[in-house]
Amino acid sequence: MSKKSIGAHPYLYPTPIMLAGTYDGNGKPNIAAIAWAGVCNADPPLVGLAVRPSRHTHSAIVARKAFTLSIPTQDMAAATDFAGLATGRETDKFAVAGLSPVASEAVDAPYVAECPVILECSLYQQIAFPSHTYFIGEVRDILAERAFLSTSGKHPDMMKFMPMAYDAGENAYYSLNKLIGKAFSVGLPLLKQK
Amino acid sequence: MSKKSIGAHPYLYPTPIMLAGTYDGNGKPNIAAIAWAGVCNADPPLVGLAVRPSRHTHSAIVARKAFTLSIPTQDMAAATDFAGLATGRETDKFAVAGLSPVASEAVDAPYVAECPVILECSLYQQIAFPSHTYFIGEVRDILAERAFLSTSGKHPDMMKFMPMAYDAGENAYYSLNKLIGKAFSVGLPLLKQK
Repeated sequence: MSKKSIGAHPYLYPTPIMLAGTYDGNGKPNIAAIAWAGVCNADPPLVGLAVRPSRHTHSAIVARKAFTLSIPTQDMAAATDFAGLATGRETDKFAVAGLSPVASEAVDAPYVAECPVILECSLYQQIAFPSHTYFIGEVRDILAERAFLSTSGKHPDMMKFMPMAYDAGENAYYSLNKLIGKAFSVGLPLLKQK
Repeated sequence: MSKKSIGAHPYLYPTPIMLAGTYDGNGKPNIAAIAWAGVCNADPPLVGLAVRPSRHTHSAIVARKAFTLSIPTQDMAAATDFAGLATGRETDKFAVAGLSPVASEAVDAPYVAECPVILECSLYQQIAFPSHTYFIGEVRDILAERAFLSTSGKHPDMMKFMPMAYDAGENAYYSLNKLIGKAFSVGLPLLKQK
């Protein structure tokens, strides 16, 4: 083992890659590609996402106090990437990417109909960090395609809906492969050894 | 397409799964499995992780104002899961899992020698959410195994070091498969259409 210092960077391995859906000041639906996001709290369920103040999505979240997170599938890589390249100030990103906005019933924001899993979030808090605002959203509901639910019927199954995993260092999208094991289970033999 | 409401949950698809390394009040190195983490800011690089106040890692981060995030590989699933099942109050998790603590040179915390990628973080801020504290760490340095660097030599390559992806709904660890495409690239044809 020989480790090299690669410097200070905002990288995690892997991150999700999602489409944040908002209505802007004119009520136009918009999407932005978001990889910098994480769960912040269990009860209530809170998720945070980092958005630069210069971005169109930033003013939209501040105005409407809501956003959705639509999880794109592996075959939506080009549309997802485009949503990170263009700005909603000048472009109808839904139209160019061939995606369909649907008004959330839970919050004042649109989601992407073609995405299999949707988080509907109301703005809970916003935290101003030096370069980004961290928007904390309270998850009001999750919508999941019935065809992609796990055998329990309770949650979407990543092996069925096939989200992408992102790496902000190499700037690349990756696919998921297979189940390694269940949590609170594969470690039990070690727990018995202690 | 037919979507089902599955209720409000703190799920993202996928999340990373990491080992948070700390020294406790007695200076004993400890690890905890952490999936609820996200990038919060670019400059300085900030990452947040959600930890329940009852956990041993919580008091350790408060005491030492530092933590590391060691990224385990797919063949470390059992050790990672064990780190989420046991508590450092009663157990030397490094010893039971057969892992080696190394003192970070950048911050006052240990990391896992066997992990290929390490984030060394000093405590930047802590935010009290209702059930969890969100510890914001400033990434002081990232260490990466030389054998797993990308061809540029600048970043670790997930296809070489093979981290896991986690799903807190199904409580399961998954492997990554292959590169789908590069960001700021696969969406360029759509950008030209707009």
